[in-house]
Amino acid sequence: MLKVRGYAVHDSKSPLVPFSFERRDVGPGDVQIEILYCGICHSDLHQARNDWANSLYPMVPGHEIVGRVVRVGANVTKLKAGDFAGVGCMVDSCRRCFACDEGLEQYCEHGATLTYNARERGSDALTFGGYSEQIVVEQRFVVKIPDTLDLKAVAPLLCAGITTYSPLRHWRVGPGQKVGIIGLGGLGHMGVKFAKAFGARVVMVTTSPEKGKDARRLGADEVLVSRDAEAMAAHAGTFDFLLDTIPVGHDVNPYMSLLKLDRTMVLVGALTELVPPVAGASVILGRKNLSGSAIGGMAETQEMIDFCARHDIVSDIEMVKMQDVNQAYERLVKNDVKYRFVIDMASLKEAA
Amino acid sequence: MLKVRGYAVHDSKSPLVPFSFERRDVGPGDVQIEILYCGICHSDLHQARNDWANSLYPMVPGHEIVGRVVRVGANVTKLKAGDFAGVGCMVDSCRRCFACDEGLEQYCEHGATLTYNARERGSDALTFGGYSEQIVVEQRFVVKIPDTLDLKAVAPLLCAGITTYSPLRHWRVGPGQKVGIIGLGGLGHMGVKFAKAFGARVVMVTTSPEKGKDARRLGADEVLVSRDAEAMAAHAGTFDFLLDTIPVGHDVNPYMSLLKLDRTMVLVGALTELVPPVAGASVILGRKNLSGSAIGGMAETQEMIDFCARHDIVSDIEMVKMQDVNQAYERLVKNDVKYRFVIDMASLKEAA
Repeated sequence: MLKVRGYAVHDSKSPLVPFSFERRDVGPGDVQIEILYCGICHSDLHQARNDWANSLYPMVPGHEIVGRVVRVGANVTKLKAGDFAGVGCMVDSCRRCFACDEGLEQYCEHGATLTYNARERGSDALTFGGYSEQIVVEQRFVVKIPDTLDLKAVAPLLCAGITTYSPLRHWRVGPGQKVGIIGLGGLGHMGVKFAKAFGARVVMVTTSPEKGKDARRLGADEVLVSRDAEAMAAHAGTFDFLLDTIPVGHDVNPYMSLLKLDRTMVLVGALTELVPPVAGASVILGRKNLSGSAIGGMAETQEMIDFCARHDIVSDIEMVKMQDVNQAYERLVKNDVKYRFVIDMASLKEAA
Repeated sequence: MLKVRGYAVHDSKSPLVPFSFERRDVGPGDVQIEILYCGICHSDLHQARNDWANSLYPMVPGHEIVGRVVRVGANVTKLKAGDFAGVGCMVDSCRRCFACDEGLEQYCEHGATLTYNARERGSDALTFGGYSEQIVVEQRFVVKIPDTLDLKAVAPLLCAGITTYSPLRHWRVGPGQKVGIIGLGGLGHMGVKFAKAFGARVVMVTTSPEKGKDARRLGADEVLVSRDAEAMAAHAGTFDFLLDTIPVGHDVNPYMSLLKLDRTMVLVGALTELVPPVAGASVILGRKNLSGSAIGGMAETQEMIDFCARHDIVSDIEMVKMQDVNQAYERLVKNDVKYRFVIDMASLKEAA
């Protein structure tokens, strides 16, 4: 077994604290990665605090992982020691069902194994995430990171990036379309970058007028303040696609009214109850679709990374030290980050 | 002006009572129809009682209208006196917008003119529906009814029929698919007939085990009782398409769990708030779509009528006299009808 240091939470009320644990030894299909950077996702906070009532403790969060390969198993072909590699939200799946065969491991019929706050396949052992020195992952769930990208700013691509890239691709967002990205946070700022790169006319839809300038810097052609009823009415029925990145339950009805006939709004952030309730009329009138999307499959995650390398797309980040993670969480609650915290794992060594 | 007798409600608390009013004279593009039969739609009840807070009184309900053409304007080519004709939920639209050009008049960007509880285009005059002797409608909004069909059982096709036919066609329901029809009422029983005629394997999803036998008679291959948690779990993730005909707000989450990856549930009945609330996870996990559909366009309504003529499909009905309409409403509240009340307009003459 591999001894690893990291940070964990032990219950829903306590801060992250130093934690030592063991990883499995590298098996024939495994890749052992020295973690260099790990992004802080909003869902880390949700799970650390048991917002989804499914938390398993102790929990080592982190599923936006970038690092250097230190060892590979005998059957590993896609990576070798010294390569840069990434791990996202899942580390395994059944690999046999329809979804897995389609490269949609995130929708595995038997449940994908999440990178943390889950149990290893066929075992009671907890999975531990990226707020740690090392991780061992089966090669199918590891992507290769080109060394031309700024590695620390790549980390958030593994969750925030693929979560926005995948639905924009699946619903064929492209030139000639007016596309709204709702919510300017970790996901939203990647949504703006991707929608722009795909050639759409991008409208940032936000509750906060003060975010307008930054939205334009990120690539938005226009800013729509959702609290401005007059502006919302002027945009009603004009959007070809909406990507809703708001991470908590909220009123989707005003956004649905922005869509053209037959068009789709995709939720990627809000897993919990949509309150105030969705009105049936919001989908019936105009034959609209309220849809959702979860991260992306492994092949598509690699495709996304390669797309980012070609188009020089990374996340806008703020680096934090491992020992400052609790302050970062406090700031995340207040949306006080542009647009993703990334933990520099070198700080874990300093702390030791 | 044309003097017409019918039945109207004068406020949300009162019964339907005899009512005399005027229709416009037949214009160059108009068709004057002597109404023979008019179906009672669940939405007649909603609107008579102001459930949607948009009722205009006096209100003459009725939008499942079948009758005989008595006169046509000079420019009318598709119908002539003596033909049988049908009128559904709308009697006009802007006829110029994108939706109208696409033959989707029900989604007219300027609002289709509803058959009743609306105002005539460019006027303050109320529209009055089919609980009456005669109606005058622009030819685009009139369909031709083949005389081979049982006319009285055709009436509900103009709303319940097209409302279920259209989404089953739009989402390409057909052979090799497992399709669920949720709710066995006026809409649901037509949904079963159409889904079966399109070649799908049809599962009736109902809260009422006692409806199973009848569902099979109508064409269902299987019955799933939605209150049976074990049966619901056994069917989880197995449906290619769901048509939800429940006419009031309800919990859609258990139904969404029945869908396969990437599949769609379409609401056609519940315009109001979906309570308990939709969980974001119901669409995010499995990239599912919660969609809606409203009646159908006029060309598609004619297509549906012609399909019914070829396949000998009509509604299962119970005839009522005009003067018994209030009792019929009371029974409708209790779902005590198999499956649609149709008013025999000859009774209006008796009553006079």
